[in-house]
Amino acid sequence: MSEGFTLWFTGLSGAGKSTLASLVAEELRRRGHRVEVLDGDEVRTNLSKGLGFSKEDRDTNIRRIGYVCRLLARNGVIAISAAISPYRAIRDEVRAQHDQFFEVFVKCPIETLTERDVKGLYRKALAGEIKGFTGIDDPYEEPLRPELVVETHIETPRQSLARLLGRLEQAGYIAPSGARR
Amino acid sequence: MSEGFTLWFTGLSGAGKSTLASLVAEELRRRGHRVEVLDGDEVRTNLSKGLGFSKEDRDTNIRRIGYVCRLLARNGVIAISAAISPYRAIRDEVRAQHDQFFEVFVKCPIETLTERDVKGLYRKALAGEIKGFTGIDDPYEEPLRPELVVETHIETPRQSLARLLGRLEQAGYIAPSGARR
Repeated sequence: MSEGFTLWFTGLSGAGKSTLASLVAEELRRRGHRVEVLDGDEVRTNLSKGLGFSKEDRDTNIRRIGYVCRLLARNGVIAISAAISPYRAIRDEVRAQHDQFFEVFVKCPIETLTERDVKGLYRKALAGEIKGFTGIDDPYEEPLRPELVVETHIETPRQSLARLLGRLEQAGYIAPSGARR
Repeated sequence: MSEGFTLWFTGLSGAGKSTLASLVAEELRRRGHRVEVLDGDEVRTNLSKGLGFSKEDRDTNIRRIGYVCRLLARNGVIAISAAISPYRAIRDEVRAQHDQFFEVFVKCPIETLTERDVKGLYRKALAGEIKGFTGIDDPYEEPLRPELVVETHIETPRQSLARLLGRLEQAGYIAPSGARR
């Protein structure tokens, strides 16, 4: 049975966390791993209804995701979180509760994100129609020592995926793709 | 790899849910299963801080436990809930989200519980010092068709455990104890 761990994506809205989480989840399942993706929206529905976007509520939300990831990871599942998780201290608190924790900083300049603005959220945040938007009028604290940084403005999702899988193999979190399981 | 399912204990405070949950968890682990016990207190700390004991808050708490049990169960874990879970509709809602769900009604007359009163809670509830206490001034809705009823005022925890394991084997949730895994 494969060993579980938590794969934690962090980054601004629209940077590509969910896209990369989906791609890696698909590939890891194909390789025979058990995988669960906890994205921000699903978790807000099931674990954190009623919480808002104050620092305290965001922290509570991330702690809950961390708790569920830990339960899954210690039972052999690769638990993937794709929430913004803007605060370094809380991410590190979650990390400290894990035996195996792999943090991926999904990095993209705010200028690129406001230009792309797939969901139109940055425009609204800049216009003041959404308050407390991470990166605009709410903080985002970059990880200091993430296991991997992917820069989504200069590499494609497939390139990020390949680098991520390579690093997971190299660090012994998963078997090399050619290996028999 | 063994298949996961959710083993859901329901019953009044002090009826013996946690005792039986611990015993069965220990035995199932001994037999090689992956097991997680979500008891009421642990979950209130990690998933439901800030929730009170109104019907709405109790329902939210139980839905969260149900969600986490489902994530674990579909990944091969035996997820055990030992929360009071007083409302039938919410238990049935959680059941409906599961492929495999085994409900154990831990039954004990309120008279026996108030006599034992290990934690002194019934005395306080009867004196009005605790409000909204299940079975005293807050409802408890017995399951109509639980997979098993254990009556903790007429059988020992070991007897309940033996009956529970027998039923789990009989229903195909776990292999017979003599079988090789």
